[in-house]
Amino acid sequence: MTPRRWPRKNDPDSIRARQEELAGLVGDGEVFRHDLAPFAKATEALTGVAVVPVAVVGPIDADLGDYELDEPDGVLVERGRNSESVYVPLANTEGGLSISLYRGARAAAESGGFRTHVMRDRITRASTFLFNDTAAAVEFARWIETQVADMREWLASAPLEGLSKHARLREIETHVVGPMCHVMYAFTTGDAVGMNMITRNAFALNQGFVAERAPVKPKRSLLEGNMGGDKKISHRYFERGGHGKTVIAECTLTEEAIRRILRTTVDDLLELAFVGTHGAFASGMQSVAFTPATAIAAIFIATGQDVGMVGTSSMAHGTAYRVEGGLHASIRLPGLEVATVGGGTTLPYARSWLRVMGCEGPGKVYRLAQIVAAATLALEISASAAMATAGSENFYRAHFERGGLR
Amino acid sequence: MTPRRWPRKNDPDSIRARQEELAGLVGDGEVFRHDLAPFAKATEALTGVAVVPVAVVGPIDADLGDYELDEPDGVLVERGRNSESVYVPLANTEGGLSISLYRGARAAAESGGFRTHVMRDRITRASTFLFNDTAAAVEFARWIETQVADMREWLASAPLEGLSKHARLREIETHVVGPMCHVMYAFTTGDAVGMNMITRNAFALNQGFVAERAPVKPKRSLLEGNMGGDKKISHRYFERGGHGKTVIAECTLTEEAIRRILRTTVDDLLELAFVGTHGAFASGMQSVAFTPATAIAAIFIATGQDVGMVGTSSMAHGTAYRVEGGLHASIRLPGLEVATVGGGTTLPYARSWLRVMGCEGPGKVYRLAQIVAAATLALEISASAAMATAGSENFYRAHFERGGLR
Amino acid sequence: MTPRRWPRKNDPDSIRARQEELAGLVGDGEVFRHDLAPFAKATEALTGVAVVPVAVVGPIDADLGDYELDEPDGVLVERGRNSESVYVPLANTEGGLSISLYRGARAAAESGGFRTHVMRDRITRASTFLFNDTAAAVEFARWIETQVADMREWLASAPLEGLSKHARLREIETHVVGPMCHVMYAFTTGDAVGMNMITRNAFALNQGFVAERAPVKPKRSLLEGNMGGDKKISHRYFERGGHGKTVIAECTLTEEAIRRILRTTVDDLLELAFVGTHGAFASGMQSVAFTPATAIAAIFIATGQDVGMVGTSSMAHGTAYRVEGGLHASIRLPGLEVATVGGGTTLPYARSWLRVMGCEGPGKVYRLAQIVAAATLALEISASAAMATAGSENFYRAHFERGGLR
Amino acid sequence: MTPRRWPRKNDPDSIRARQEELAGLVGDGEVFRHDLAPFAKATEALTGVAVVPVAVVGPIDADLGDYELDEPDGVLVERGRNSESVYVPLANTEGGLSISLYRGARAAAESGGFRTHVMRDRITRASTFLFNDTAAAVEFARWIETQVADMREWLASAPLEGLSKHARLREIETHVVGPMCHVMYAFTTGDAVGMNMITRNAFALNQGFVAERAPVKPKRSLLEGNMGGDKKISHRYFERGGHGKTVIAECTLTEEAIRRILRTTVDDLLELAFVGTHGAFASGMQSVAFTPATAIAAIFIATGQDVGMVGTSSMAHGTAYRVEGGLHASIRLPGLEVATVGGGTTLPYARSWLRVMGCEGPGKVYRLAQIVAAATLALEISASAAMATAGSENFYRAHFERGGLR
Repeated sequence: MTPRRWPRKNDPDSIRARQEELAGLVGDGEVFRHDLAPFAKATEALTGVAVVPVAVVGPIDADLGDYELDEPDGVLVERGRNSESVYVPLANTEGGLSISLYRGARAAAESGGFRTHVMRDRITRASTFLFNDTAAAVEFARWIETQVADMREWLASAPLEGLSKHARLREIETHVVGPMCHVMYAFTTGDAVGMNMITRNAFALNQGFVAERAPVKPKRSLLEGNMGGDKKISHRYFERGGHGKTVIAECTLTEEAIRRILRTTVDDLLELAFVGTHGAFASGMQSVAFTPATAIAAIFIATGQDVGMVGTSSMAHGTAYRVEGGLHASIRLPGLEVATVGGGTTLPYARSWLRVMGCEGPGKVYRLAQIVAAATLALEISASAAMATAGSENFYRAHFERGGLR
Repeated sequence: MTPRRWPRKNDPDSIRARQEELAGLVGDGEVFRHDLAPFAKATEALTGVAVVPVAVVGPIDADLGDYELDEPDGVLVERGRNSESVYVPLANTEGGLSISLYRGARAAAESGGFRTHVMRDRITRASTFLFNDTAAAVEFARWIETQVADMREWLASAPLEGLSKHARLREIETHVVGPMCHVMYAFTTGDAVGMNMITRNAFALNQGFVAERAPVKPKRSLLEGNMGGDKKISHRYFERGGHGKTVIAECTLTEEAIRRILRTTVDDLLELAFVGTHGAFASGMQSVAFTPATAIAAIFIATGQDVGMVGTSSMAHGTAYRVEGGLHASIRLPGLEVATVGGGTTLPYARSWLRVMGCEGPGKVYRLAQIVAAATLALEISASAAMATAGSENFYRAHFERGGLR
Repeated sequence: MTPRRWPRKNDPDSIRARQEELAGLVGDGEVFRHDLAPFAKATEALTGVAVVPVAVVGPIDADLGDYELDEPDGVLVERGRNSESVYVPLANTEGGLSISLYRGARAAAESGGFRTHVMRDRITRASTFLFNDTAAAVEFARWIETQVADMREWLASAPLEGLSKHARLREIETHVVGPMCHVMYAFTTGDAVGMNMITRNAFALNQGFVAERAPVKPKRSLLEGNMGGDKKISHRYFERGGHGKTVIAECTLTEEAIRRILRTTVDDLLELAFVGTHGAFASGMQSVAFTPATAIAAIFIATGQDVGMVGTSSMAHGTAYRVEGGLHASIRLPGLEVATVGGGTTLPYARSWLRVMGCEGPGKVYRLAQIVAAATLALEISASAAMATAGSENFYRAHFERGGLR
Repeated sequence: MTPRRWPRKNDPDSIRARQEELAGLVGDGEVFRHDLAPFAKATEALTGVAVVPVAVVGPIDADLGDYELDEPDGVLVERGRNSESVYVPLANTEGGLSISLYRGARAAAESGGFRTHVMRDRITRASTFLFNDTAAAVEFARWIETQVADMREWLASAPLEGLSKHARLREIETHVVGPMCHVMYAFTTGDAVGMNMITRNAFALNQGFVAERAPVKPKRSLLEGNMGGDKKISHRYFERGGHGKTVIAECTLTEEAIRRILRTTVDDLLELAFVGTHGAFASGMQSVAFTPATAIAAIFIATGQDVGMVGTSSMAHGTAYRVEGGLHASIRLPGLEVATVGGGTTLPYARSWLRVMGCEGPGKVYRLAQIVAAATLALEISASAAMATAGSENFYRAHFERGGLR
């Protein structure tokens, strides 16, 4: 059967036509009752809504860095630091998530709070230039590596309509394999994630700059050849960042907070870390962590982030390390793809939830990245404590011998 | 600063208290206006909602298998196949996504439609038993590998309250490293993802069965030691499945559909596959695919799935292979964590969107898994076509020389 | 230029012809002076020799298991254990290696010696059957998974000349992706590594058994499709074994031995393990260990093993864990590809060095695997101790302030 | 049992003492008969020799680049290219290896020969600096990244005895995770692999430069924290190189050479590449290739390379790509750890075999790297052809129906 054409427009008639077509399938129709006008530009074939309940927990105490990009290299410079108390919205339907995350935040708060660091900010489009042999790809690679300054200038001259000024080319890296030269164009994109911007700019570079100037002509250029790290997890971006913000959150939990709030011990947490780190290794896991995606997904849905990036944004490297008087805990999120402008962040509900965190609009993206990292670490701490306790003799006695679970 | 306690309950007063606390932060307050009653049991600290626009596209034509689990081994048996036309809800704010996915579905439909296969169904909790040396761990491993039948019987006898009958233990695998024995308990869980069920059952096994019967006593048992594949991508679960449904979707695109609907060629698509597969390898990507997470996230939000599982569910191995008269395209999703009962799927909007696909309630989970896989492949095909075309000379001429982009 | 044909035979005239051709290139010609007769069947185009110096260290004290394969499943059964003192030959030119390895062995000996465990024994050939679509590959997979018993019977009936009786098929695993069905034939091969045996048997199965009986005919069968783990490291074989012996060596070092022989402390070693484990993770390392390949290469050259397998045989997962009174240290080698019969092990020098370890000939392969694992752990311990010490304040003072390095 | 001390010296008495101790174990004693004098400085506890037969094949035709390092950045500059015909020594005991490699070389020679490219030259020591929290590690990282020029100057001033002038520091990269800052010191080391040189220089930097100048003092510095890529395979060094020479060998096989010499077809080779690339992915392989370690091990043993580096040196990314009139084949070896001076390369047999290839002594290391890469590709081509043919109908008929295998 060939499907008839399904209308894609979002004028009232088209929307109604789609809703009527589905009326018999959908039950009581609450999905069609919401006013769709605010979403008319968000997606084609708009037909209804999904509503997700949002918990808010807080305040989460965190010492946040204040960052700027150095020009023209795009290195992050820390201008100062501020201690903040923030409420965090968690769009979720997972019983226990919000209180667990909050418990971790309380343990951190009693221990002096979280501290966060933004290490790197890049977003990469990896175009591929295909030749008939490696020698040509090598010659091309040597040439294109020298062109960054000229490319910046060319992009700044607005040679084509539709190019983004926000997407600034910072570096190029090449990777030659077989008859291919992969070219990683690394951009910064202001407060947006910027995939669309960098796609347009990379495409323009490929077709307008490279095609005309390269001393050796590619037989074919492909906008993306899968070294760019978009929406699929890879070691390249786990180690080095380059697709979003590389952020680290840390805190040094006191023994008192571990005992009283987390109801476990430094020793128990370290045994869990030993087992969990080696278990991750044994299973070929591309992260060392417990459940970072849970916190990140909940904030992403609430704030209009690209939920298809939950996987890559959740790549995480967590550590636990005994220090005098307690335990240092940290999580490194190498590729947190967050925005405070553009895409879903401009829509009504998302905008409000961003505002709750003081993260609405331009100039707020590093703040948001740090709050997400702190919230993620809060959940890691609490979930780890629950897991660590569950294996101890005390837990066993409490729940089995005294009847807890029965 | 020590945070004051934030109320976690969802009675009207607590909800209102939270909303009032945040009133000054949130702007015009549309996030608080929705009736929260249907969500009162979904999350603690419930405070508002997020609303996500939903596109619906279709029909998508697919030949779906009808599967049952063999008892007691839990092998999937195909009882029959049905050709279906399905509308798919996509909660998203990404311009172009819904029409691109639909374009891929049309190309497939004109080529005979998608065909889908469910290969495996398991959900794993990997507990770890810690000893003082390897010899003890080895002895323990040899013992526990023989206990599956007894464990099934013990669980069936309902030795503790709160155990799930839906979570059926199918196999155990052990992995000894250092002084640890990791034990992968592989369950099936009916139409739910079942993390809570298997957590309870695994915990009971550890504390009630193992602790009492093991010939060598672990010094500590940990409910999860990170070989279980929960919410973090790993090679183990990419290759073998074991955390959700392993599903493959395929179609054989005709040259005519490729030319007329996708506006590219078999050769162009194969060049892209060559470049993209090697690019994935070069960057240490844990998938070979273009953008599976995009489709999966959109369906997950609409249907109340656990969005923290978007990353693991999007692990994907795609292929493109020239056949007589066209191109065979496929995607293997080794760990698609979908449910039609439990968790967020029971809530109003989710239930309705599941119903649109004929996937509401018990007995529908393999159907849902297959529809998700087909939709994911639809988007892969269309996105690949766009990418392949963008690198060809034709595209260049059309857009640059004739002024398309300018 | 088209090269003239270079003689490949090993009769005296051909050997001399090659030597004369190279005489002007080779200098004083010691490489041609050795009697080549014993090697005439070892390699075509035999022209000279390489001589590698061999250190011998020991005794290494180890408690070795005595294993047999259960029939027909091929599960390893431990029949007993023996404490042994073994001298180990190390063909190497790396100053410090032999004494370092011996230092580790002494530390272990003073702590009660090593203990070793063979967990699994398999060698895999992964053939691939190619179809025009996934449905056919799925149907094929379902069929072939049921054929193990019949395949064993067919192989035992000697349907073709040249099949090996030593190569016993134990299990089949399939992996369908795209239009392919990969079939992992897992064999045991007695005391040989057995690549040639299993190649012949797998090829016969593909062409004689599968081609005639499969209900759906592959369009093409390929003897190896790269899931077999031969000579390239992969997560599959790192986690599960299946290409050689999976062996674990362990010992519990006393504080006294750590202090007196290794000149470091439990704390220092644990700090190194913390740093080294997270460093391995951060760099995407496919092992957690320090220098296993060094020990393994040295024993492989001396004993005529396949040195092309040094990389895969050196996959390693090491752990360090504090216990009462000391430190538990272990290394898991999931795919140690050793032999005591066949290939290079039958040649003069190799045979002698095997004999030094009591590992010559049939029935000795698990012994050899365990000795290699113990020697590898010995070097790990000593090298780690050197590394751990080097970072401590004590080392700094000893070497810099008191002039050690100056 | 506590082992008595085993003499480690290499004076004649100590050697004889060891030989006598082992006399009863070793059989006829050919391992002790070789003159050990030339090896007295190669390894402690020298006791005997291993003799490995060496095949020589050739000539292999290759177009080799002539490279120099730019100062001070250490970028490789190609000064010219030369066509060469080289004989290659293969220390091995694997029947078929030498003639198979030679067959691949002939197919390449008839197609115009190999062409090779050296892309990068670095050797890395990754020291780790441990702090009590991440903030300190971040501050340290920001500081040390600015110190490269000063470090170069400090090393050049010879502040300590025993530092190497050959080991030139080129770049530093940092990686902060948890309370650690990993510092990758990337050196070039002339014609040696240089692990000892860079170990000394890195240690001196850590203890003499960093310890005195760092604005924030590490609580501990560890010479190597496992991000350095030494002897264990990792994605970091697979993708980027940095541990040895990154070399690519390529050739464009004509249809005629494929048919006549390799006895297969472009189509068959491409089917194999399709299956093998996806099989590698499916099994989590850290290379895409068939058997690079075989060629590399054989040359390494003959030429006195560090055989413990066979695994890392064999990391490989191979491609096969259809071009007009034939097939482009290539292999990228990202971390080929070869030397023409130092270590085992200075010993008698090794020196002679290096001389056969025109690779003895200083100034030859890039030549050697390229010859190894060409030889590796030669074997890949031939082994792939054998594998591809084995699955075709023709092969089946030839061997089964006409009785080949029977």
